[in-house]
Amino acid sequence: MTLLVHLGNIDENEWADAFRAKMPDQKVVTSADAFDPKEIKYLYVWKPRDDVFDGLENLEVIFSLGAGVDPILKHPHLPKDVPITRFVDETLTQCMSDYVVANVSMHHRELTHYRFEQRKHYWTQYYPAPATDIHVGVMGLGQLGTDAVNKLASLGYQVNGWSRSKKQIENVTTYAGANEFDTFLANTDILVNLLPLTPDTQDILCRATFEKLRRSVLPHGPVIINAARGGHQNEEEVAACLQDGTLGAASLDVFKTEPLPNDSPLWDLDNCYITPHIAAISSFEGGVNLVAKQIAQYERDGHLDHVVDPAQGY
Amino acid sequence: MTLLVHLGNIDENEWADAFRAKMPDQKVVTSADAFDPKEIKYLYVWKPRDDVFDGLENLEVIFSLGAGVDPILKHPHLPKDVPITRFVDETLTQCMSDYVVANVSMHHRELTHYRFEQRKHYWTQYYPAPATDIHVGVMGLGQLGTDAVNKLASLGYQVNGWSRSKKQIENVTTYAGANEFDTFLANTDILVNLLPLTPDTQDILCRATFEKLRRSVLPHGPVIINAARGGHQNEEEVAACLQDGTLGAASLDVFKTEPLPNDSPLWDLDNCYITPHIAAISSFEGGVNLVAKQIAQYERDGHLDHVVDPAQGY
Ligand SMILES: NC(=O)c1ccc[n+]([C@@H]2O[C@H](COP(=O)([O-])OP(=O)(O)OC[C@H]3O[C@@H](n4cnc5c(N)ncnc54)[C@H](OP(=O)(O)O)[C@@H]3O)[C@@H](O)[C@H]2O)c1
Ligand SMILES: NC(=O)c1ccc[n+]([C@@H]2O[C@H](COP(=O)([O-])OP(=O)(O)OC[C@H]3O[C@@H](n4cnc5c(N)ncnc54)[C@H](OP(=O)(O)O)[C@@H]3O)[C@@H](O)[C@H]2O)c1
Repeated sequence: MTLLVHLGNIDENEWADAFRAKMPDQKVVTSADAFDPKEIKYLYVWKPRDDVFDGLENLEVIFSLGAGVDPILKHPHLPKDVPITRFVDETLTQCMSDYVVANVSMHHRELTHYRFEQRKHYWTQYYPAPATDIHVGVMGLGQLGTDAVNKLASLGYQVNGWSRSKKQIENVTTYAGANEFDTFLANTDILVNLLPLTPDTQDILCRATFEKLRRSVLPHGPVIINAARGGHQNEEEVAACLQDGTLGAASLDVFKTEPLPNDSPLWDLDNCYITPHIAAISSFEGGVNLVAKQIAQYERDGHLDHVVDPAQGY
Repeated sequence: MTLLVHLGNIDENEWADAFRAKMPDQKVVTSADAFDPKEIKYLYVWKPRDDVFDGLENLEVIFSLGAGVDPILKHPHLPKDVPITRFVDETLTQCMSDYVVANVSMHHRELTHYRFEQRKHYWTQYYPAPATDIHVGVMGLGQLGTDAVNKLASLGYQVNGWSRSKKQIENVTTYAGANEFDTFLANTDILVNLLPLTPDTQDILCRATFEKLRRSVLPHGPVIINAARGGHQNEEEVAACLQDGTLGAASLDVFKTEPLPNDSPLWDLDNCYITPHIAAISSFEGGVNLVAKQIAQYERDGHLDHVVDPAQGY
């Protein structure tokens, strides 16, 4: 039985070779190879094409290269009852927290304001409030959100977290579910999105959300940081809110269409900080090791880690 | 006996009123008031003018508004044997660590690079290394440096610290003295200065220092962050090194002349991040409380905290 590597625009041969080196007993093919679809037992996938599942009658496990499985779950030909596992990895988590801490602290310390002043050669002493006065709200308290809130709390920020089910995390005020969303927002100066993209979370970063954020502490207005999915943000409303003062600044790593189209108004807004979906990479080594470990365990006792719940969408 | 408030260009009346409110039994005068110099027992001082000590025959304690006492120690008429205490405060320390973390993490995450790409509407996926691969070296392990290294270590950075006497700090590799300076630099990608300004530390941020920093990890070259004193940096060499690639970027909060003169080349360098000496403020409340506490203790048992050693210069 065989592992099929299907990775959209990513170099599949590099991954296939690494899998072969790590699992010498496992047959590995790429989507460009000639192979009998019936022999495919495992699929390693990212950006699935329309035909990815055609003929895979004996598929037993889908391994997602990414931490987010939204592109797999919405595939029209996704076979029912084949478990999907997602990518969870220490380095991925570290990089995401690096991105979050850098962007939270940079906005807290009013980078946009000081860069503006610097361009004009202005010397105006204005003192940002200590982190202990700044409320950071993190949406999503999973693998990534939990590490981010812990690191933010260790820096002295007042940290709020929001998830579907109620959590208990030391030094973090937690909120859960749609009922507590508005209270969570009203206590948040800097809003960080680390949710999975599901029907419930689609377009959650919109004007109605931004208008509920706390406006009392950051002098240029509240800030949003989106490192999850472009589908979470209404980009017209983000751009408008950055211009009319509803938001002081935004850091966006993800977009509805990627690469971000050349004519997006977001590119040229001085208070919008764009990165090209690089907040946290699924490392090559981490991906290969995790899949090899999962296959070994699955063949031993049928158990898989990090299995997605398709009903919940993550 | 009287407390004299002498604060250069800062509003002395505001401070004097706050001292009076906090210590109703204490006579308080400002440098603009008419007073008999012989009655002055305590001096609260910042940016001392030339005549500040004239006639203060009965001065017993000098309280510095600032954490750094370099302007007091170099005063030509500083009376010998009058103890000088400096400002130490939780909020000051918090704000300094906020500044350090924001600037370290922003440079680690290559802000200059991505802002350049954004201006051109470029979408080029390049992934910053995880914090666990980045070596941050902090010069000065006193009140401010110790808090900064602890916070940086909690974020996952490899942290090095350098001080005069050898320190033991969990999760931090420590170096001490001139002998170990080069090894410290060779292991440092991002160099943070939190030293006091003394004859030994003057101009320590110069080309010779920058050329010893590690160049293997940050793609645009090593980074310096100076939040201590302008006297620590050779500004011509900083500007030249930012332009010739010896340094990838710099964050500077302090300058040889403040406000930074309009014709300084530093203003217009895209990889130089200027703030107007606002990294950490000596808060009004903190200053009043500390002086009141010190005077009460001194009058009770003659003891003072945070006394400077003039021989060492800090
Ligand atoms: N930009 C990048 O480079 C990058 C890299 C990796 C991942 N990501 C994105 O980050 C996302 C999060 O990853 P993760 O590993 O942390 O996911 P995870 O472990 O599955 O955590 C998801 C969290 O979101 C919460 N949540 C889900 N639906 C919700 C709802 N309707 N209302 C409130 N909370 C809800 C969950 O609540 P419960 O705890 O109650 O279940 C959970 O706390 C991924 O889905 C991916 O899209 C982006
Ligand atoms: N930009 C701002 O807004 C701002 C605000 C506040 C303070 N500051 C500056 O920050 C400085 C540090 O403040 P602090 O309260 O942390 O001072 P501190 O507690 O006195 O600590 C000074 C540290 O520097 C070390 N040191 C002194 N001379 C040295 C030398 N020649 N070689 C190696 N290490 C040396 C000391 O070593 P030992 O431990 O061995 O004595 C000590 O670890 C102040 O002096 C001030 O200039 C700037």
